[in-house]
Amino acid sequence: MSQSGSPAVLVVGAGDFIGAEIGKRFAREGFVVCLGRRNGDKLAPLVQEIEAAGGRAHAYTLDARDESSVQAVFAEIEDNVGPLATVIFNVGANVRFPLQETTSRVFRKVWEMACFAGFLVGREAASYMAPRGTGSIFFTGATASMRGASGYAAFASAKFGLRALAQSMARELGPQNIHVAHLVIDSAVDTAWVRERIGAGGVDVAALPEDALMRPASVAEAYWQLHCQTRDAWTFELDIRPFAETW
Amino acid sequence: MSQSGSPAVLVVGAGDFIGAEIGKRFAREGFVVCLGRRNGDKLAPLVQEIEAAGGRAHAYTLDARDESSVQAVFAEIEDNVGPLATVIFNVGANVRFPLQETTSRVFRKVWEMACFAGFLVGREAASYMAPRGTGSIFFTGATASMRGASGYAAFASAKFGLRALAQSMARELGPQNIHVAHLVIDSAVDTAWVRERIGAGGVDVAALPEDALMRPASVAEAYWQLHCQTRDAWTFELDIRPFAETW
Amino acid sequence: MSQSGSPAVLVVGAGDFIGAEIGKRFAREGFVVCLGRRNGDKLAPLVQEIEAAGGRAHAYTLDARDESSVQAVFAEIEDNVGPLATVIFNVGANVRFPLQETTSRVFRKVWEMACFAGFLVGREAASYMAPRGTGSIFFTGATASMRGASGYAAFASAKFGLRALAQSMARELGPQNIHVAHLVIDSAVDTAWVRERIGAGGVDVAALPEDALMRPASVAEAYWQLHCQTRDAWTFELDIRPFAETW
Amino acid sequence: MSQSGSPAVLVVGAGDFIGAEIGKRFAREGFVVCLGRRNGDKLAPLVQEIEAAGGRAHAYTLDARDESSVQAVFAEIEDNVGPLATVIFNVGANVRFPLQETTSRVFRKVWEMACFAGFLVGREAASYMAPRGTGSIFFTGATASMRGASGYAAFASAKFGLRALAQSMARELGPQNIHVAHLVIDSAVDTAWVRERIGAGGVDVAALPEDALMRPASVAEAYWQLHCQTRDAWTFELDIRPFAETW
Repeated sequence: MSQSGSPAVLVVGAGDFIGAEIGKRFAREGFVVCLGRRNGDKLAPLVQEIEAAGGRAHAYTLDARDESSVQAVFAEIEDNVGPLATVIFNVGANVRFPLQETTSRVFRKVWEMACFAGFLVGREAASYMAPRGTGSIFFTGATASMRGASGYAAFASAKFGLRALAQSMARELGPQNIHVAHLVIDSAVDTAWVRERIGAGGVDVAALPEDALMRPASVAEAYWQLHCQTRDAWTFELDIRPFAETW
Repeated sequence: MSQSGSPAVLVVGAGDFIGAEIGKRFAREGFVVCLGRRNGDKLAPLVQEIEAAGGRAHAYTLDARDESSVQAVFAEIEDNVGPLATVIFNVGANVRFPLQETTSRVFRKVWEMACFAGFLVGREAASYMAPRGTGSIFFTGATASMRGASGYAAFASAKFGLRALAQSMARELGPQNIHVAHLVIDSAVDTAWVRERIGAGGVDVAALPEDALMRPASVAEAYWQLHCQTRDAWTFELDIRPFAETW
Repeated sequence: MSQSGSPAVLVVGAGDFIGAEIGKRFAREGFVVCLGRRNGDKLAPLVQEIEAAGGRAHAYTLDARDESSVQAVFAEIEDNVGPLATVIFNVGANVRFPLQETTSRVFRKVWEMACFAGFLVGREAASYMAPRGTGSIFFTGATASMRGASGYAAFASAKFGLRALAQSMARELGPQNIHVAHLVIDSAVDTAWVRERIGAGGVDVAALPEDALMRPASVAEAYWQLHCQTRDAWTFELDIRPFAETW
Repeated sequence: MSQSGSPAVLVVGAGDFIGAEIGKRFAREGFVVCLGRRNGDKLAPLVQEIEAAGGRAHAYTLDARDESSVQAVFAEIEDNVGPLATVIFNVGANVRFPLQETTSRVFRKVWEMACFAGFLVGREAASYMAPRGTGSIFFTGATASMRGASGYAAFASAKFGLRALAQSMARELGPQNIHVAHLVIDSAVDTAWVRERIGAGGVDVAALPEDALMRPASVAEAYWQLHCQTRDAWTFELDIRPFAETW
């Protein structure tokens, strides 16, 4: 419960799409929503939207790759908003480079963003939740979490690493009543950027069947359902993809 | 929609526990519930319970390993109850034998019950759903669906086979707007029989922490959530287990 | 050691390609090679070829789906040739049908050939090897052993089932000093039939780069290497595919 | 071929056990063996042992986490020894910490050693091999490459990451005739340190059955067999474990 008596959720990687929808979904259920992204100022419209709909939201400038930034934001929330019931790590870093064009800087940066940041956030969340014996920590995965592919040495390596982190945390923290889950988004998500990229690839985006692309709100719904599970039947991992997807 | 205007669900393997709870869960949501098991007479108390709670239910004697029995029950339901929106294959066959004690009869019977029956039911469901371009078909899996183990040659072989069936069906039928999913129950489920078996293994069942065993109702809830997914974000596979489970 | 003092190997599914090469490979190493296929008469040219090269070979008519046939051939070999050191189950059943065209007869026949027969052969092999505390039992897998696909409900289901059998046997029999392994052939194998089928698919087979198709002899080599492993470092599973394969 | 006309192999992580045996195995086959470890001086006895047996070996001080060190050693070998035919990345970093005791420094260091170093070495190897259109690059994996576990957040995350790197490289480089493989060592390896650790765990090490622990030479043999595969049937991944191992 937050100081207002409502539970609090933190969404790390609260960008314009999935993270924003997760925030709105949990706000509709009465959560105080804490939103973190590298430039917290960009969150103002989202906070306003949530508040206009009757919810409560707070924006944080958070560099999830930076331990002190992570620790400061968690402390700020726990002190001033209330205990976090749920933390969702939703930071993307999808890049594609042939191996020889993958600089060591890129390899490291992708890992810091997609894996190391997940460790910092997950461990910090657990450090508050374990003494309370309750909480949930969810991680956003991708196709690249499950298999490597040409051009994805950096991205798949980081996403595999995040999945192993989540699996190890689930096994350690489950018996402490902390629900750790990993959501594998096995598809492109419907955003302006994705439509543009698909279009550039020669697809007539306007002609795509309805629901051929995954809506960010549907990802948010999957997270909400994970949150609703009773502890006698927790899911560690599930995949989601549009009906028309070939895989 | 059934002839009453309500959607219909068929639960194959509507035993005393998981299948029964699935039936009750869908009945609460307004589904006309069709229940099938080898001896349909045993379903009378469940039908009464659902009806007493204001729901509608029908019982069928169904041998899911027998093609003509499967076809007859589907035809009966489609003709007299209404089009099936959802079909759930929930037939168990958990047996453990050392390899040399696994007779060819056992190996075949376990496969017929846990895998071949799933094929007959899944294909029959798809034959009605594909022309309508809508429906969902769900399969109950187990730990043995994911890995073999000493003593589980027959059971794991059948459950792997069922999973491959589900995966192949998902890939063929997804683009036809039919949602196929596979639920991996990675734990014992709380039943009188399981408590007895665990007790016989030396565990003080009464001293187990609350929620240490999975409730059949929680499995039913997982199926209901799968049913509720929008088609832009369908799950093919998810696992469930109690928080205290080591894995 | 066979009665001649040489070790004996049985290849079940000794067709014209992979099985034949396995036989020749083990014959070159001094094994007495027992070859089984549904029509043992067809094995005469292979037996002659092995003998012409200085090896020893025996042909058996063996229906691996028939328990009494399996038992009779094993008994015949053990009685008259010598104790089997290695048994390789190499029966294929690759078929592709849309779900609605997959008859229950096809589903059952594919399983009997690709999975049930593997159980009969594997169990029979183990029944001789376990009392001796030595031996190896290998199974041929395929891409469809690892993932389902549209049109492969029957084949993938059977191959998943065979893999689970192999995994369960490995875990039970390893500590009894019996090496069980599963070889995943993730590619077409170079045969006249495959070249024809690929050609029919529009590929200029003559223009394929050298080694673009897997040679049956290379599969045989993989089996030989498995056989050569010392028991402190046994492989349960490995995949093989040509260098040029995309996956 | 090296300048002497012999092929050259580089073993990164040429410690006292597995790496040393790999070096000796390839030396016996006529390879010029290049050995790299953080303190190259410690390699003197191994170089002497290989030379005493009639082989040729060179020692290098190599910090595989340091891009310039990796580049310098590769350049030195390619310039002065000859073109590398095979590169084996065999750097371990097996640590176990509860999540809250896993410092960010540990998490990063384990990743740098077990994953990032693998990227630097693999990419550098590929940069020389791709223009030549030939070569092989092998990576040593572990149980933790395949599943997370309580206490293994850092190690499993790094090993999953290495596996994804290997898989992505295999898919990109295979068609360029470069064989990339990943060897999963699913067991403790027989070393003085392991015997001590197992003993401290209460096991009577002296009473272990013969071959209960994997010999480093058997790992080396597995690498040699990978090297010997023809390109029409390359293995990407295989596991090895002792016969008596339960898994």
